[in-house]
Amino acid sequence: MLPKYNVLTDEQVRAIHEESIRILSEVGMEFGYGPALAVFQKEDQNVEGNRVHFTREFIEDKVRLAPAEFTLHARNPEHNLVCGGDHIIYMPGYGAPFIHEVDGSRRKTMMQDYDNFVKLAGASKNLHMTGGTVAEPQDIHDEIRHLKMLYSSIKNSDKCFMGSAEGRERAEDSIEIASILFGGREVIKEKPVLISLINSLTPLKYDGRMLGALMAYAEAGQALVIASLVMAGSTGPAALAGTLALQNAEVLAGIALAQSINPGTPVVYGSTSALSDMHSGSLSIGSPECALFISASAQIARFYKVPSRSGGGLNDSKIVDAQAGYESMMTLMASTVTGINFVLHTAGILQYFMAMSYEKFMMDDEMAGMLLHYMNGFHFDEDGMAFDVIAKVGPGGHFLTQKHTRKNHRREFRTAELSDRVAYDSWAKEKIDTNERAHKKWQKVLANYVPPALDAEVDKKLQEFIAKRAAKLM
Amino acid sequence: MLPKYNVLTDEQVRAIHEESIRILSEVGMEFGYGPALAVFQKEDQNVEGNRVHFTREFIEDKVRLAPAEFTLHARNPEHNLVCGGDHIIYMPGYGAPFIHEVDGSRRKTMMQDYDNFVKLAGASKNLHMTGGTVAEPQDIHDEIRHLKMLYSSIKNSDKCFMGSAEGRERAEDSIEIASILFGGREVIKEKPVLISLINSLTPLKYDGRMLGALMAYAEAGQALVIASLVMAGSTGPAALAGTLALQNAEVLAGIALAQSINPGTPVVYGSTSALSDMHSGSLSIGSPECALFISASAQIARFYKVPSRSGGGLNDSKIVDAQAGYESMMTLMASTVTGINFVLHTAGILQYFMAMSYEKFMMDDEMAGMLLHYMNGFHFDEDGMAFDVIAKVGPGGHFLTQKHTRKNHRREFRTAELSDRVAYDSWAKEKIDTNERAHKKWQKVLANYVPPALDAEVDKKLQEFIAKRAAKLM
Repeated sequence: MLPKYNVLTDEQVRAIHEESIRILSEVGMEFGYGPALAVFQKEDQNVEGNRVHFTREFIEDKVRLAPAEFTLHARNPEHNLVCGGDHIIYMPGYGAPFIHEVDGSRRKTMMQDYDNFVKLAGASKNLHMTGGTVAEPQDIHDEIRHLKMLYSSIKNSDKCFMGSAEGRERAEDSIEIASILFGGREVIKEKPVLISLINSLTPLKYDGRMLGALMAYAEAGQALVIASLVMAGSTGPAALAGTLALQNAEVLAGIALAQSINPGTPVVYGSTSALSDMHSGSLSIGSPECALFISASAQIARFYKVPSRSGGGLNDSKIVDAQAGYESMMTLMASTVTGINFVLHTAGILQYFMAMSYEKFMMDDEMAGMLLHYMNGFHFDEDGMAFDVIAKVGPGGHFLTQKHTRKNHRREFRTAELSDRVAYDSWAKEKIDTNERAHKKWQKVLANYVPPALDAEVDKKLQEFIAKRAAKLM
Repeated sequence: MLPKYNVLTDEQVRAIHEESIRILSEVGMEFGYGPALAVFQKEDQNVEGNRVHFTREFIEDKVRLAPAEFTLHARNPEHNLVCGGDHIIYMPGYGAPFIHEVDGSRRKTMMQDYDNFVKLAGASKNLHMTGGTVAEPQDIHDEIRHLKMLYSSIKNSDKCFMGSAEGRERAEDSIEIASILFGGREVIKEKPVLISLINSLTPLKYDGRMLGALMAYAEAGQALVIASLVMAGSTGPAALAGTLALQNAEVLAGIALAQSINPGTPVVYGSTSALSDMHSGSLSIGSPECALFISASAQIARFYKVPSRSGGGLNDSKIVDAQAGYESMMTLMASTVTGINFVLHTAGILQYFMAMSYEKFMMDDEMAGMLLHYMNGFHFDEDGMAFDVIAKVGPGGHFLTQKHTRKNHRREFRTAELSDRVAYDSWAKEKIDTNERAHKKWQKVLANYVPPALDAEVDKKLQEFIAKRAAKLM
C-alpha cells in the first residue's frame, strides 16, 4: 500500500482548526431543531434562539470521543468493511434525479434504475458497498421512497448500504429495517450496519431534517457521515483555505453533537466542498479547487483521528466524454492518494451530481480498479525484484517466454476490463469508443448478475414492515 | 506549491539502486558505438567486445557530477526554464507519425502539423516549451527532417526547444543551428539551449545513433534526457520493482557516460517505462502500472539529485474519448504530484504514442492548467483565510456580492478554458462534447497566433545553413 499524500503542513492544518474554533465561538451556528439545541444547552454551550456559540473545550473534547476507525457490518460478513486507517471504501453516486442515457438524452430516474445500480455495485470487484440513494427514483412517492430504496439495497446485494437521512422518522424506519435484517436493535447497536449522510446547510446551519436523522442514528449507535458542501464563492468565501475553515467548523459541530448524544458514535468527516463557477454561476465539482478540498479534507480528518469522506468520480460534464474522464480521474485520484476512506460518488455521477449514467458507472468502476492497483504499489520480494530473470535474459533478450513472466504477471499487472488496449488496426475495424463499450458491458453484467439469496423469513418480515409503514405514510 | 508525493520508502529506493548496481556490474550492458566503449575503457571499466561491466564506484562517482538543476535558455529570455527542484516543465508530445483527426480518421503527419503544434505550444499558457519532434512529418525526407523541424521550432515560437538525437551528425547540425541562433558555440556551452532525448535499447543496450548524439551534446555542454522505456513483460520482467531496477541501470549508465565525457553535463533522469499488455501484446502507456513507474521515477531521480523526466498525458485510447481523458489525467497527475520536472508528452498524444491529435492537445493543455492550479495549493494569508467575510456573512448568508469575493476569486479560482461548466439546459441546446469544443478552440488559437519576430539577419543565416546542409544530405 502506497503512503498517503499530505498536501498541507501540520501548521496549516492547525491554522484551519484554529480558525474553525474561532468561527464556532465568535460567529456561532444555527440549528433548526429543538432537541439539538437542548443537547447543546445541557452541555453548557451558549444557546440564543437557534444560534449556538461553542467553546473550544466542548468541540475539542467531543471530537476526541469519535473512534479512529470502525467496522460496518454487511449481511454477508465477507463484505464487512473497516472504515478508517488505510482502508478505502468505494461506492456509487448518491441522489441523482436524472438518468443520462447512452444516446445523450436525459430522463427521470426510476425505481428500476435504483435496482440496477445496486446490482451493478453488487457485481463490482472494485466497489466495496452499494451506497445509499444511488439514484433518486421519481416514480416512487417521496413519502415511501426510503422504504423502497432500503428494500432494494437489501434484496439486490449483500454488501453494506446506507440509511435515509431525511428526518428522524425515516431514520427510525431505516433503523427498524436494519434491525429486522440483522436480528434486533441491540445487535446493531453493538455492530453498526447503517451509515447515513448528514449534510450541513452552509453557511453555518443545520436544518431540522438532518438533525433529526443525526440524533436518531447516534442514539441507535449507527454510523454517520457528517458532511459540509461549501460552494466557494457563493455559500462560502472566494478563498480555498477559508472554505476549508468554514467546512471544518460545520463538520466539527455536527460531530460534537453526535458525540454528545452517544459518546463513541462512529462518524466520518465529510467534505464535498466545491466551486461556484464565477462565469456560469453553476456548481462546479470537477475543478482543481475541488481536488484541493478533497486532498486537504483527508488530512484534516486525520488530524482529528476520524475517517474521512469525500471525492468520487466528480465532474461537470454532461456526457461520458473526455471531460467526464479527466475530471473524474482527477478527483478520484486525489481522494485515493490523499487517503479519503469513504468515497461516496465513486461511480456513475455526471452533470455536477444531477445525473447518473450507466456508462459512466462502468467507466468509474474501471478507474476505481486502476487506482486500487496503483495504491497496491510495488512488491519488493525476490519475484518483485526479478534480478535472476534480468540476469538470465541479459542485454537484447526477451522476457515474454520466461517462466518468471508466466508466474508473476497476474500479481504485478492489472487486466483492463473496460479500457481499450488493442493495436490501432484491430480497433479501427469497429471504432468503438468508451461510451459504447461501457454500454455493452453494463448490460452484460446486469444480465449475468444473480442477487444473493435473502432468508425467506427475514424477507417476509421486511416486506410486512414496509407494507405497513407505506400504508401509513401514503 | 504543494509538497511532492513520495510513493517509496528510502529503503525501497536504496534497494532499487543496489539492484541496478548489481545488474551493471554482474550482467553489464552493451554499447553499439566504439567511441563510447573507448570512454569506458579509459575510465578503467571492464570492456569485452560491446559488453561493459561497471564498477559501483564509477557509476556512483559519475552520477554525483550531474547538476541538481540547470537553466535552459530560450531566444526570449522570459521563456528561460529552470529544470529541476520544484519546477515543472510541460511540453507537447514527441515523435508521433500519425495525426488523429476530429472525425475519427487517421493520416500521416505532415510538416504543416509540426508547424501547427509548435504554434499551439507557443500560444499556450500552460506549456512551458515547444518540445522536440512534436510530430514526425512524413512528407519531409528523413535525411533533412531534423533541419526542417529545428527551423520550425525556432521560427514559430520563442520558447525552448529540443535537438535531434538521431545520431552524431544530426546532433552536430542541431548544435550548429543553435549556435547561429544564440551567437556561437562558446555562448551555448556556457548557457545550454538544447535538450535532447537519448533512449536506451532495453534490455541493457544503447545503439550507436543514440550514443553518437549523446556524446556530441555532452561535448557541446547541451542538456540530455537519458531515458529508458522498459516494457514490463516483454523487454523487462513482469515485475514492477524489477522493471524500475532495470530502467535505473540503463539510465545510470547513460548518465555516467555523459559525465565521463564532460563532467557537469546537465542531464535529466528519464523514464517512460510501461506495460506490455498480456492480452493484446500491445504497448500500454495509460495503465496504473505506468503511473507507478512515473511516480517512483520522480523519487529515484531525487535520490540521485538530478531532475526527472516522465509522464505526460499518456493513454492507449484511439480517440479523444473518456478513456483518453481518464488515462491521461492519471499519468499527468501522477507526474505532477510526484515531482517529475520535465514532462514530455504533456499534450496531444493518443494511441500509445503513435498519433497526435489537435483536439487531444487542447484537452491536455486544459489538464495541464488544472494541475498547475492544483499544485499552487492554498493561500494562508488573511484574504485566503477569509475570517472577516465569514464572520460578516454569518449563518445562512451569501458571499457572492461581498467585496472579498470580487477581490479574491481570480487569485483563488482557475477559469476553465475548455471544460464545460454551464447548466444542463444551456448545454443541451447544442450538446457539444469535449472533442468538438477542442476542435473549435485549436482552430481559433491557431488563427490568432502571431509567431514572435525573429531577427532577419539570424533568420537568413539559419536558412543558409539549412539549405547548404540539405543540399549535401539529399
